[in-house]
Amino acid sequence: MNILTKFSIARPAHEVFEAFVDPAKIGNFWFSSSSDRWEAGKTITLRYEEYNATVVIKVVEVKRNQKIVFVWEGPGEEHVVTIALQEVDEARTVIEVNEEGFSQDDPEFVSKLVDNKEGWVFVLTCLKAYLEFGVKELRAGLVK
Amino acid sequence: MNILTKFSIARPAHEVFEAFVDPAKIGNFWFSSSSDRWEAGKTITLRYEEYNATVVIKVVEVKRNQKIVFVWEGPGEEHVVTIALQEVDEARTVIEVNEEGFSQDDPEFVSKLVDNKEGWVFVLTCLKAYLEFGVKELRAGLVK
Repeated sequence: MNILTKFSIARPAHEVFEAFVDPAKIGNFWFSSSSDRWEAGKTITLRYEEYNATVVIKVVEVKRNQKIVFVWEGPGEEHVVTIALQEVDEARTVIEVNEEGFSQDDPEFVSKLVDNKEGWVFVLTCLKAYLEFGVKELRAGLVK
Repeated sequence: MNILTKFSIARPAHEVFEAFVDPAKIGNFWFSSSSDRWEAGKTITLRYEEYNATVVIKVVEVKRNQKIVFVWEGPGEEHVVTIALQEVDEARTVIEVNEEGFSQDDPEFVSKLVDNKEGWVFVLTCLKAYLEFGVKELRAGLVK
């Protein structure tokens, strides 16, 4: 089972791409820090200071300005996340985030889907605010 | 079954309250228009031009700067939405939105929960961007 989240961002695809892969940019809309530039084959440590959380991801595939695929591990399961960028024109990109690997046998199945949707919608709205308006302080506004 | 979404907004409670009840403000973060000021007993027509959607709600309870309860109808079911505001101090309000009425017997149960979570996280992030930074153009950025 998967969770798909889709946003329109009024910026070119390379700016949306760099926001994820460049460790200097991720702190403006998502994690506090990223240990390295995202490239295929690399293992990256992501840190979210405000929620005292550390996440390790393995970057599987990177197509510059078009696609990023990574794997992260949740409790008892491995999820594959695909970020796909479609540049509609120079001024607009549609970003689609698809997370796969939710098990319907998991007793927490429904709450995991809902939590996951919460996370991606929040991240992508923060990304939009950052890239379109330079607002970098929305992250960590979600109360868990 | 319910869906609960909770955000921290760095503004006093009365500003968060007015953003919902004042028809001149709702278009800055949520629906395009609201037919009237939200008060207990009133029926309000909400219009979302970008998604060509009209929603009619019945306002059940209003406690100034503290609480708004309304009922809206989805296909085949009536949902109760409670917006609760807790002013932590003059500079910060925690807003909690609880939507109840999802039926587990509905074959669309899981997708309705997930869609609902998507909607509230998006609305509340847009509300935060509007109240904290004056950004009014994030709404309608979600691609359905």
